[in-house]
Amino acid sequence: MIFKEETMSSEMIYNGKIINLRVDTVELPEHKYQKREIVEHPGAVGVIAINDKKEIIFVRQFRKPVEDVLLEIPAGKLEEGEEPKECAIRELKEETGYEAKNIKFLNEFYTSAGFSNEKMYLYLATDLQEGECCPDEDEYVDVINVDIKKALEMVSNNEIKDSKTIIGILLSKDLI
Amino acid sequence: MIFKEETMSSEMIYNGKIINLRVDTVELPEHKYQKREIVEHPGAVGVIAINDKKEIIFVRQFRKPVEDVLLEIPAGKLEEGEEPKECAIRELKEETGYEAKNIKFLNEFYTSAGFSNEKMYLYLATDLQEGECCPDEDEYVDVINVDIKKALEMVSNNEIKDSKTIIGILLSKDLI
Repeated sequence: MIFKEETMSSEMIYNGKIINLRVDTVELPEHKYQKREIVEHPGAVGVIAINDKKEIIFVRQFRKPVEDVLLEIPAGKLEEGEEPKECAIRELKEETGYEAKNIKFLNEFYTSAGFSNEKMYLYLATDLQEGECCPDEDEYVDVINVDIKKALEMVSNNEIKDSKTIIGILLSKDLI
Repeated sequence: MIFKEETMSSEMIYNGKIINLRVDTVELPEHKYQKREIVEHPGAVGVIAINDKKEIIFVRQFRKPVEDVLLEIPAGKLEEGEEPKECAIRELKEETGYEAKNIKFLNEFYTSAGFSNEKMYLYLATDLQEGECCPDEDEYVDVINVDIKKALEMVSNNEIKDSKTIIGILLSKDLI
């Protein structure tokens, strides 16, 4: 049986730059109570940008939480009041320098609904024009183009380890 | 340019039941410093269980962080010292009652590497045998079987909103 959990009380633990953490006490059936640890996130956008050679544009960057360099699609969090599509255009330009003549919504999903409300919006960008990139001052990324077939192999053999990137590659397989 | 961020100091903000939150101060190029908010997670397992009718076994449950009922593959976090495969067998049994004669590793990925170290291990379970399910006392789930083709449609039209579930469905498409 599915049961909507009503919030009985809510405690804000931490207000951060990107995330907040709060702990809610919720009511379960039979008057039982449980704590839920919840990471609040503003939401984010990822962009599958594909050039005329059927290559996907990736960025490589060090990710502190996992202490590893990951190959990912260009992505970033939503600014306050920003529309996901606007954010997709901005992040693609900032991280890779590319501007896309065509950009369309592909999919949206929760990255980790068990403990966070982070929602990821994926966009497909095509008809790319190269330009200067201008990453945020605390971002250090390499831009790398990978053929779609090769990218699919890199999903299969686990060289690509980022969820939004895996979803983007698997979804774009049938679109190109 | 990629730059490995060395930890200069680390502050533990919250030690929770499922997650911890810490804030690291890291060194960037040119002696700049930046805070990184990091959610520590023990890791988790998801199971694509497919029966003889080519249906995927899903669970529907209320997810407090997103205040919504989601359709997901059976999943759960790793217990201390537990192997991912063991966890996959346990969670499948607990949430759906099914036991699988065949269970094999499919893929692994980070759900949200920008702010968390959560790693998700996906397993494919086949040759299923029905049994009694025994969810954790604070879990309330419905078990639902959906034809693989229908599940793929539900990814395309965004009825399925959970990242591990989308990856599992898209990967199993070519395996069955």
